[in-house]
Amino acid sequence: MTEQLIKKRLTALAGKLKDNQIDGIIVTSMSNVSYLTGFMGHDAWALVLGKRTWLLTDSRYTEQAKTECPVCKIVQRKKNLAEEAANILKRNKSVKKLAIEDTATLAVFANIKKHIKLKFKKTTGIIETIRTIKSDDEIANIIKASKIADASLDQVIKKMRVGMTESDFAGMLDYEMRKRNSVAAFDAIVCFGSNGSRNHHFPGQRKLKKNDTVLVDFGAVCNGYRSDKTRTFAVGKVNKTFAKAYETVAAAQTAAIKLIAEGIALKDIDAAAREVIKATQFPIYGHGTGHGIGLDIHEQPFMSHIAKGKLQAGQAITVEPGIYIPDKFGIRIEDDILVTKTGHKILSRTNKSPELKIIKAKG
Amino acid sequence: MTEQLIKKRLTALAGKLKDNQIDGIIVTSMSNVSYLTGFMGHDAWALVLGKRTWLLTDSRYTEQAKTECPVCKIVQRKKNLAEEAANILKRNKSVKKLAIEDTATLAVFANIKKHIKLKFKKTTGIIETIRTIKSDDEIANIIKASKIADASLDQVIKKMRVGMTESDFAGMLDYEMRKRNSVAAFDAIVCFGSNGSRNHHFPGQRKLKKNDTVLVDFGAVCNGYRSDKTRTFAVGKVNKTFAKAYETVAAAQTAAIKLIAEGIALKDIDAAAREVIKATQFPIYGHGTGHGIGLDIHEQPFMSHIAKGKLQAGQAITVEPGIYIPDKFGIRIEDDILVTKTGHKILSRTNKSPELKIIKAKG
Repeated sequence: MTEQLIKKRLTALAGKLKDNQIDGIIVTSMSNVSYLTGFMGHDAWALVLGKRTWLLTDSRYTEQAKTECPVCKIVQRKKNLAEEAANILKRNKSVKKLAIEDTATLAVFANIKKHIKLKFKKTTGIIETIRTIKSDDEIANIIKASKIADASLDQVIKKMRVGMTESDFAGMLDYEMRKRNSVAAFDAIVCFGSNGSRNHHFPGQRKLKKNDTVLVDFGAVCNGYRSDKTRTFAVGKVNKTFAKAYETVAAAQTAAIKLIAEGIALKDIDAAAREVIKATQFPIYGHGTGHGIGLDIHEQPFMSHIAKGKLQAGQAITVEPGIYIPDKFGIRIEDDILVTKTGHKILSRTNKSPELKIIKAKG
Repeated sequence: MTEQLIKKRLTALAGKLKDNQIDGIIVTSMSNVSYLTGFMGHDAWALVLGKRTWLLTDSRYTEQAKTECPVCKIVQRKKNLAEEAANILKRNKSVKKLAIEDTATLAVFANIKKHIKLKFKKTTGIIETIRTIKSDDEIANIIKASKIADASLDQVIKKMRVGMTESDFAGMLDYEMRKRNSVAAFDAIVCFGSNGSRNHHFPGQRKLKKNDTVLVDFGAVCNGYRSDKTRTFAVGKVNKTFAKAYETVAAAQTAAIKLIAEGIALKDIDAAAREVIKATQFPIYGHGTGHGIGLDIHEQPFMSHIAKGKLQAGQAITVEPGIYIPDKFGIRIEDDILVTKTGHKILSRTNKSPELKIIKAKG
């Protein structure tokens, strides 16, 4: 992470804290700690006072932190994180009021209040709101993560055989991402046949049949940034209902993507996809239509029928409508999209062949 | 999950709630939800009133929940989880006081209080304390998870080649676990050479040299239960300091394991391992000596120099001392152990060859 980039983020945060008349913030969410310090490990907090930042972590991570963090001071904790934060605050007596993220647990906050006798303000999404607008550098990482995912799925599709299990498929996919110096952005969802309607199904021992369907929802990571895509395809003989449902989902996704541009209401993106499905006999999906991606696999903005707010240029989002028929099949298509001032840019491969085509089995 | 097992757990919980004069509990920790309902998905809460249980989840998971949950009522949420819990509570007017786990976030608790106008008591580890004592069924799953990990590492060791990357190694290991219908219990730590001193290092592009050292900390999952082991070994010519440090860590681990039995103080287990290293010129490790395993990779009990409490029969724990020399190497050895009334039983393979021996390279 460059010093310049980190300083820009800290300046944005300092502005937001000042607006809220808060002197500093204890950052306990790991993605936010990474964003503000560059540190990619675990078990760490950041303490931010104005533009000064401390990374508090333990002996397992201090060596790593020294190479990753260009700006912050690194504190190797001897006691618990709250006590180390209290020590720093004792040397900074002008600090009267601190923010605590409402993603902190009740236990963590109780411990902080035990050691730090200041005023606290619980805040929602202060840093997440800054994170939602991506820099060119962040977008480049998401694009790389998306390319790694594309290349990995291509390899697995080449190796697909009738009789392989969902677990085999998921394992091959993970391995292909590892070979490319990446790692799964989340536990891949791999569903053969009717398992597709359990749309967060964990890959198991179901074997691929000669005539079958495959739904795979997965992503890769590049420098902490995640891609997230879903592909569904048939092998062997294609069921007509499946083909029709597939076309419907593809049309729903296209309708939603077409609409994407700065200033469009989040709920309108959701509605655009849903309306295409509503016009058919197929059931409407129960999940949202998309979400932001970045250091987290699900982050602001969230597109659903109850979403408030509008798209902003610089947001990286997914669009993922689906049709699920219990005991038959599930279909979902998901791509990663950058919101721009005048429209959007698809970050995943736009040429979707072969995985979006209904391909033949390699039995 | 059997109905009988779930009912036994709910009875234990009902007893603890009664002792604390609490009428019910909103369970937000996913591992605890799984433990009390059998549900292995995500994004769900359990509401427990006496011995009655509701699983609240969304449409993505209701199909899965029906097959996994033998006892609880399944509620497919239309609104947010707190609103659904409020609806159930409106029909159960005798409930006056509810427990909320202190692992819940401030945001979750704020939302619960907004919708549910009852008295709340923040509780620490009520369900975790029940979970720490494993049933035979749970131990069988941990043993299976441990065997899968052993077999997977054996395969990777056979395929090791000079020039492979840490990321390749981790990918092969994940794939071998997937082939065995399992999955990584956590992101594997794979360190070649001096990366071993960064003891929570993420596997990267460092290539295996002809003369090198390997540290791998990983685990598998069986029915939700996790194993956790670390192996360190040298390939090629073995550095004398490494060999001496290895013997020291092995002796430290043996000293700690020997002591394990019901009633032994947690801090004494920690001290037993540390004292072996203190008697040498090698530096003491900064992390704890071990932790419980189960549905979570780190759970009660935790063994460190500040730990309170004693071992109990039925606990499954790891013992993992280490020696870390920055810019040189890291060594850690970790095994999974069952605490019994009279002593202990090692759940990992007791014959540690070949991975604990200092093996030759397969260049």
